[in-house]
Amino acid sequence: MSHDVLPGDARVVFEVIRGRRCIREFIDKEVPSEYLRVIVEAGLWAPSGSNLQPREFILVRDKNLLRAVKLVSPGLYGNPSALLIICYNKNTARKGGRLGETMALLDAALSAQNIMLMAYALGVGSCPVMSFNKMAVKEILDIPDYVEPVLMISLGYPKSWPKPPRRKSVEEVLHVDGYGRRAR
Amino acid sequence: MSHDVLPGDARVVFEVIRGRRCIREFIDKEVPSEYLRVIVEAGLWAPSGSNLQPREFILVRDKNLLRAVKLVSPGLYGNPSALLIICYNKNTARKGGRLGETMALLDAALSAQNIMLMAYALGVGSCPVMSFNKMAVKEILDIPDYVEPVLMISLGYPKSWPKPPRRKSVEEVLHVDGYGRRAR
Repeated sequence: MSHDVLPGDARVVFEVIRGRRCIREFIDKEVPSEYLRVIVEAGLWAPSGSNLQPREFILVRDKNLLRAVKLVSPGLYGNPSALLIICYNKNTARKGGRLGETMALLDAALSAQNIMLMAYALGVGSCPVMSFNKMAVKEILDIPDYVEPVLMISLGYPKSWPKPPRRKSVEEVLHVDGYGRRAR
Repeated sequence: MSHDVLPGDARVVFEVIRGRRCIREFIDKEVPSEYLRVIVEAGLWAPSGSNLQPREFILVRDKNLLRAVKLVSPGLYGNPSALLIICYNKNTARKGGRLGETMALLDAALSAQNIMLMAYALGVGSCPVMSFNKMAVKEILDIPDYVEPVLMISLGYPKSWPKPPRRKSVEEVLHVDGYGRRAR
């Protein structure tokens, strides 16, 4: 099936999914507050295990705080206009029982993908960052013990939209009706 | 900012993000193969830590296999036309070092969100399932030891599109420039 024949909205969604890039160089231009709000809101609409919604978000816009977080975050590149730190509340997550904390981790990531797609659809670049010093970030942002940062999303206007890194093909990663059985 | 004034593609993306539902009752109608392929492809375009792409996908369409998997999956509701099991390859994930396996888990979820949005944009219902017996599923689908199933996505045409469960508001979960500081 050629993607050109997808029905209207599906084509837009596929193009946004395929067009999003990880942005590591930003220009010096603020992302408007209203955009940041819509981007956060998109994150809230991701599903959540048992609908517990253990997610909490910390938006960092203050330049001094951004600088401080960057110093302890080796995975954070460039100077984004804002950072959105996706966390989960451990007290809420524990209500999910044995799987609670793993679900909360996955919930954070489901949310992150909505956030990055929404940003891209608004012309805003983003990049997920996992490599940061959690203890230091918690200290800088007064994050209490019962809140666990999972990943950060940098947000800003990109210097450029890079070409996509190579993706594995469907054939390489898809198995049908059993491992090792390929799609016909 | 009213969502009605979002630029064209952004509005479509927001509507798809907000419109997606977890579907737990399906009608007896197959999802076309071409749609399933586009849905899987959407999953491949999610970012991946260090671009390792440890993800592997097992699509289950065979009715007997679907029945067998359902028997060991308490979190799986209804009779979907297909199941997509999102896994990661542990050998690939380990190349990511200390954070490798956590990154692979998050990668799987980033991918899952693309998959559910793409499905919805094509009129296909989905639901993420985390509660299943991993050992039994691995046995049923010949999944080797070095491949770890993370979550399943059920796919099919919904009996109906349910109303959204209550979502926390932006005000409840967003902190700005420090935990406990609310957006102005």
